[in-house]
Amino acid sequence: MIKHHAYSVEPWSIRETELDLGMMAQCESLFALANGHIGLRGNLDEGEPHALPGTYLNSVYELRPLPYAEAGYGYPASAQSVINVTNGKLIRLLVDDEPFDLRYGQLHRHERVLDLRDGVLHRTTQWTSPAGRTVEVRSTRLVSFAYRSIAAISYEVRPVDGPAQVVLQSELVANEPGPQVSDDPRAAAVLEAPLIGEENAAEEAQALLIHRVKRSGLRIGAGMDHVIDGSESELVGTRSYQDSARTTVTCQLAAGESLRIIKFLAYGWSSERSQPAIRAQVEAALIAAKATGWAGLCAAQRQYLDEFWARADVEVDGDPEVQQAVRFGLFHVLQASARAERRPIAAKGLTGPGYDGHAFWDTETFVLPVLAYTNPEASADALRWRHATLPIAQQRARQLHLNGAAFAWRTITGEECSAYWPAGTAAYHINADIADAVIRQIDVTGDADLDREIGVDLLVNTARLWMSLGAFGDDDRFHIDGVTGPDEYSAIADNNVYTNLMAQRNLRGAVDAVARHPDLARNLEVSGEEVLDWRRAADQMVIPYDERRGVHPQAERFTDHARWDFEHTPPEHYPLMLYYSYGDLYRTQVVKQADLVLALFSRGDAFTPEEKARDFAYYEAVTVRDSSLSACVQSVIAAEIGQLDLAYDYLGEAAMMDLADLEHNTRDGIHVASLAGAWIALVAGLGGMRDHNGRLSFAPRLPTGLRGLSFRVCWRRQTLRVSINHEQACYEVADGMPMNIVHFGQEVTVEPSEPLRLDIPPITPGPRPTQPPGREPLHREPPEIEQ
Amino acid sequence: MIKHHAYSVEPWSIRETELDLGMMAQCESLFALANGHIGLRGNLDEGEPHALPGTYLNSVYELRPLPYAEAGYGYPASAQSVINVTNGKLIRLLVDDEPFDLRYGQLHRHERVLDLRDGVLHRTTQWTSPAGRTVEVRSTRLVSFAYRSIAAISYEVRPVDGPAQVVLQSELVANEPGPQVSDDPRAAAVLEAPLIGEENAAEEAQALLIHRVKRSGLRIGAGMDHVIDGSESELVGTRSYQDSARTTVTCQLAAGESLRIIKFLAYGWSSERSQPAIRAQVEAALIAAKATGWAGLCAAQRQYLDEFWARADVEVDGDPEVQQAVRFGLFHVLQASARAERRPIAAKGLTGPGYDGHAFWDTETFVLPVLAYTNPEASADALRWRHATLPIAQQRARQLHLNGAAFAWRTITGEECSAYWPAGTAAYHINADIADAVIRQIDVTGDADLDREIGVDLLVNTARLWMSLGAFGDDDRFHIDGVTGPDEYSAIADNNVYTNLMAQRNLRGAVDAVARHPDLARNLEVSGEEVLDWRRAADQMVIPYDERRGVHPQAERFTDHARWDFEHTPPEHYPLMLYYSYGDLYRTQVVKQADLVLALFSRGDAFTPEEKARDFAYYEAVTVRDSSLSACVQSVIAAEIGQLDLAYDYLGEAAMMDLADLEHNTRDGIHVASLAGAWIALVAGLGGMRDHNGRLSFAPRLPTGLRGLSFRVCWRRQTLRVSINHEQACYEVADGMPMNIVHFGQEVTVEPSEPLRLDIPPITPGPRPTQPPGREPLHREPPEIEQ
Repeated sequence: MIKHHAYSVEPWSIRETELDLGMMAQCESLFALANGHIGLRGNLDEGEPHALPGTYLNSVYELRPLPYAEAGYGYPASAQSVINVTNGKLIRLLVDDEPFDLRYGQLHRHERVLDLRDGVLHRTTQWTSPAGRTVEVRSTRLVSFAYRSIAAISYEVRPVDGPAQVVLQSELVANEPGPQVSDDPRAAAVLEAPLIGEENAAEEAQALLIHRVKRSGLRIGAGMDHVIDGSESELVGTRSYQDSARTTVTCQLAAGESLRIIKFLAYGWSSERSQPAIRAQVEAALIAAKATGWAGLCAAQRQYLDEFWARADVEVDGDPEVQQAVRFGLFHVLQASARAERRPIAAKGLTGPGYDGHAFWDTETFVLPVLAYTNPEASADALRWRHATLPIAQQRARQLHLNGAAFAWRTITGEECSAYWPAGTAAYHINADIADAVIRQIDVTGDADLDREIGVDLLVNTARLWMSLGAFGDDDRFHIDGVTGPDEYSAIADNNVYTNLMAQRNLRGAVDAVARHPDLARNLEVSGEEVLDWRRAADQMVIPYDERRGVHPQAERFTDHARWDFEHTPPEHYPLMLYYSYGDLYRTQVVKQADLVLALFSRGDAFTPEEKARDFAYYEAVTVRDSSLSACVQSVIAAEIGQLDLAYDYLGEAAMMDLADLEHNTRDGIHVASLAGAWIALVAGLGGMRDHNGRLSFAPRLPTGLRGLSFRVCWRRQTLRVSINHEQACYEVADGMPMNIVHFGQEVTVEPSEPLRLDIPPITPGPRPTQPPGREPLHREPPEIEQ
Repeated sequence: MIKHHAYSVEPWSIRETELDLGMMAQCESLFALANGHIGLRGNLDEGEPHALPGTYLNSVYELRPLPYAEAGYGYPASAQSVINVTNGKLIRLLVDDEPFDLRYGQLHRHERVLDLRDGVLHRTTQWTSPAGRTVEVRSTRLVSFAYRSIAAISYEVRPVDGPAQVVLQSELVANEPGPQVSDDPRAAAVLEAPLIGEENAAEEAQALLIHRVKRSGLRIGAGMDHVIDGSESELVGTRSYQDSARTTVTCQLAAGESLRIIKFLAYGWSSERSQPAIRAQVEAALIAAKATGWAGLCAAQRQYLDEFWARADVEVDGDPEVQQAVRFGLFHVLQASARAERRPIAAKGLTGPGYDGHAFWDTETFVLPVLAYTNPEASADALRWRHATLPIAQQRARQLHLNGAAFAWRTITGEECSAYWPAGTAAYHINADIADAVIRQIDVTGDADLDREIGVDLLVNTARLWMSLGAFGDDDRFHIDGVTGPDEYSAIADNNVYTNLMAQRNLRGAVDAVARHPDLARNLEVSGEEVLDWRRAADQMVIPYDERRGVHPQAERFTDHARWDFEHTPPEHYPLMLYYSYGDLYRTQVVKQADLVLALFSRGDAFTPEEKARDFAYYEAVTVRDSSLSACVQSVIAAEIGQLDLAYDYLGEAAMMDLADLEHNTRDGIHVASLAGAWIALVAGLGGMRDHNGRLSFAPRLPTGLRGLSFRVCWRRQTLRVSINHEQACYEVADGMPMNIVHFGQEVTVEPSEPLRLDIPPITPGPRPTQPPGREPLHREPPEIEQ
């Protein structure tokens, strides 16, 4: 875990002022730069020391066979794994023949700053070589949001205390040796040397490497070019080999003189295109980058981010740490998605090899709701990616003897990569989660083209899945048995409330979609009878309720199970899955992550306020939050039922997930969904924003610890700004059309340029719900920090 | 599948009169000889052609790592696999320099006879070599019941149509190349060359090979010696190498003259003993065998079997095929167990590598009930083996945070070897099955020593498991949630009726055991309070009942699930597990093998006759019998409720399981439990024998197809003979004490030497239950065969 205050608390940046070799891996994840297409871990320019060197291209993967000691029908034979592609970040430095290596000599100063407005990573180092020469190195790295295939580094070295001969070696390296494989099943399998050299070329300050990935067959091109800026500097030249290329520059510098190079990096890949095509693509990108120049790239980066923050920024008054964390989170959400463009948004973005680089349900459930309101182009593209995997999902459904589409639980290209079916294939709710994201996207953007392009198709195919997966019982109700809900400490249960309610929304969404687009429905051979069946299944959906205990069971019989023996579970036995068998976990009442409580949020329209309060209190007592996807949801429902301080505690946990490494696996990459969760906890939690049935509603309330909160959401091409203090909420629309929203149940109209101030009604919450001993969220006291 | 009448129907033997290379693997299993310690597959003497060469020593295994694409807590890291040890069966023949190989030349006659009374495998072959010389080969093979470490072969060759130079090469071969690994998960992983040579020695007609198994470290010794009987024969000598040894004998034979050798084989193995100790052990066994001589070995074999058949024989009047099959089954049950002596009785006995050579719950549930009544020393030893694994089972329980003992679902030495926990570890009923076998063994034999030696220990430790696995709910009833019953098309369900009823018997058995032996209870730190808890848990055990449908659900919610779509399941999609996902199977009503129906048998005392009839009819309609463990149980309950013709159909299926290869995997070894099931279907089914609560009861009834049935059971050191025809049952005790039994609910006393004839009351059954389309048992018409 990262110690509190490892980074100074600043509103628009993350600053590291000490180099801690033991924390290297976590910092590499936090300081990763990405644009949704290219991802560079925050490795040092000189490559070593490193924890996990990482350079990723969205959807560039290798196949690895999935072994089964006891195989079963429908088990996937192989899985896709993200790979560390050609590393173009490397700039090695020699000072009077001594390699610049922070493990030797003396480090006087080390600072790295991730600038959330400029979208760059700055580094400043002052170091004395073992031979006694002191140099200052300044570098700035960016992965361009404006130019999808481009990254660039400005690197400058300056002797401080006397003259020095410096040599810079700027490299491309393929098949970098990786670290040991972790025993943690969540860490990705590391694949050794997956790249086969196809071409290498070097000329002047330019080089190109083309490789093929061994089993997946994908072709990757990486190119670099340089601009050298230093009096007396000499370009020694560039050489290329099968797995590396190196541009060497040397210079005799006097004290105070500096040598600076700008390194332009371009990546291209394809499963289809030929070697000459890839070569041309990379060279073209390099020429464009060089023409734009470093200053041009930086300006475009700033402009892109200015536009993003204008739409998306959240201001938190009273807690600078949360303020920093939510912007950090939004920045990483943007980095994971901005230029993904019909490629997946992986659980770890492009910041590390965790979860094998796979995308899960949390993209649709946690990330897309944020993007729909802050960067709707990106969420539309993410849904286009899902839609592109529809043929594979249809084939998977056929394999499983189901109708419609069964989307992969974890995947890069759409093929199911989950090797443990009870917490993979059986988690069919992902299909309803996708449908939910589609419905929201259309509601929020009003994008009728997208509706026609992918909406109807996705809604109809997922609706068909539910009809074949579930069945009408002899009670004439619609049952969905033997599925796994979001809580992975239960599995293969009947009538999971979350799943059934989401399937209900899915079915109704399909009914609406075919009504909107009867022509598309005909193409999909949707009959009137089929639509009636969807409607009847939705209306007759079983939602189990435990009358005796007055709560909803997470699934049938859940509340009949014995309670987990929390009293005898030592604190070091968390996360439970590493210390207890699935059998133990599944047959008892213990919840890894919000499941029924997630239903209270996602399908809040299906519960009364009293039910929400009782259900929440019940599940709080058995939820251990062994998943990063839980705290933000618990925060939202705590806020809704007036447990504002508890909501604030959970908000803190969601926000600090990666900055404080609360799950102990930030080393493998940041948690995109949990970082999105910080926004959710603020906007849906404290802001009380809901969007059920296409209506935007708010019920904002602040905990005592905060003075104010403001956020922006995009709705039908307009931006609504919401500002809250303890007494009032203020709704503003800059211009355009009046906007109808709901404030605490009351429909109101926000007129353009007429801020609407409305009172916040008081709430008297019940007693604070309790958590399992030792699993209470950290009590959040806003840190007192001078700004 | 083996075609009907592949073997001629004879009362005391299995005769093969044609060599079908496509059926080789099945025949090798059927003609396997074993004594519970050594197993020799029915490979041809000359080794080739073969399907699966196999020589097994009970509990000699290799370790293989179990791979998991997604690992979990408590998953076993490696599994034990039976290995093909040093092959001592080989006797190669050269006729005028031509290898005797049935794939070449011309085969005039081929006959193999498994003699169930002599306990030997005879072979007769007449063959003309490609060069035109005709020879007759006769061999007889035995694995001695009387001498545990000994096997022997008499091999004789005689030129028929002219003189011939013959050379016999009698061999020991280690690390025989095996066939391709099967894709069927049920077939064992074949382990290549697992043996490391430690010693080889040869002298005169004798040789010895000592090997160690690579990873398990077990040491194996195999020795051979020969007696040569042929005028003019010359012992060329014996040579040994690391992985082989060869004794060569040559002889010039005139037409009609013969050369005969007797080959004595001895095996020894140990995990502890040194190389010299193993060498001495093998040599001593060889000397003893040679001293006993071929005739002596044959006589001892016959005597052993005469005694067995006197206790165990079942006579079936009217169906010679079933007559043959039940004796064949009893013979294989004996072969699997006779000299196992505190080693496991594997699912495939020692006849093939299927199921990795593991023992499962079916040993206690299907095999031991037969042995308890026919060879109680063997069942006592099998339970002693289980008891020997108790420390491992206790450790496993601790690993799973449970109390008492959690016995392995599949194992050789006691370590859990199951890699798929929902159908492995979660099948906790195995612990109650063991307890049930203990209770029966003590009831049947009255063996108080065994009770003290292992009974109390096993009952207390399994009772403790249930108390920690289950829990009292807030309804004060005892619930056992999240377990898998016998039916492997369901898993991880709550309150499985079979499991709960068997756990109830287990708990009550433990209560009785500690009352019988308070001193042992004290040693085990059993408190009075603990015993009260056991009693209360047993009394308050939840047995779910579906009031609406008037049947017992197999487990909670089972009858609420959708029914499997049998109508749209094509016949070639059975067994279902090879064509449908576990998810599909688990969430629907489809039963692989008797589960609730097994409870109707094993805990028949817990159901009324009306419940049995209704439950049976209900489950018949959803049971597909994709397991060999089902037909015999269905036969028993069908008989009990008066569905005698259906009982007879299922009896036929159970009896013919391997002779007709009904499960298509007899190639990997015979199904010991199903073969035991033929006895169960006859004795417990048609004979109506039950032993609930230590009382021996009968309710015999014959189907129209049979004229009579008689069988013997051992009860407290006496043998009761029961003979049935359509009108009467006759009970006889040869001598000793009067025996109290129950005939159709009425207590009667059978006086020694006074056969007691009692009428069989008529029964009027309801309509014949129906099965899923295409899964009806074959209608059994007794074949008309002249004897």
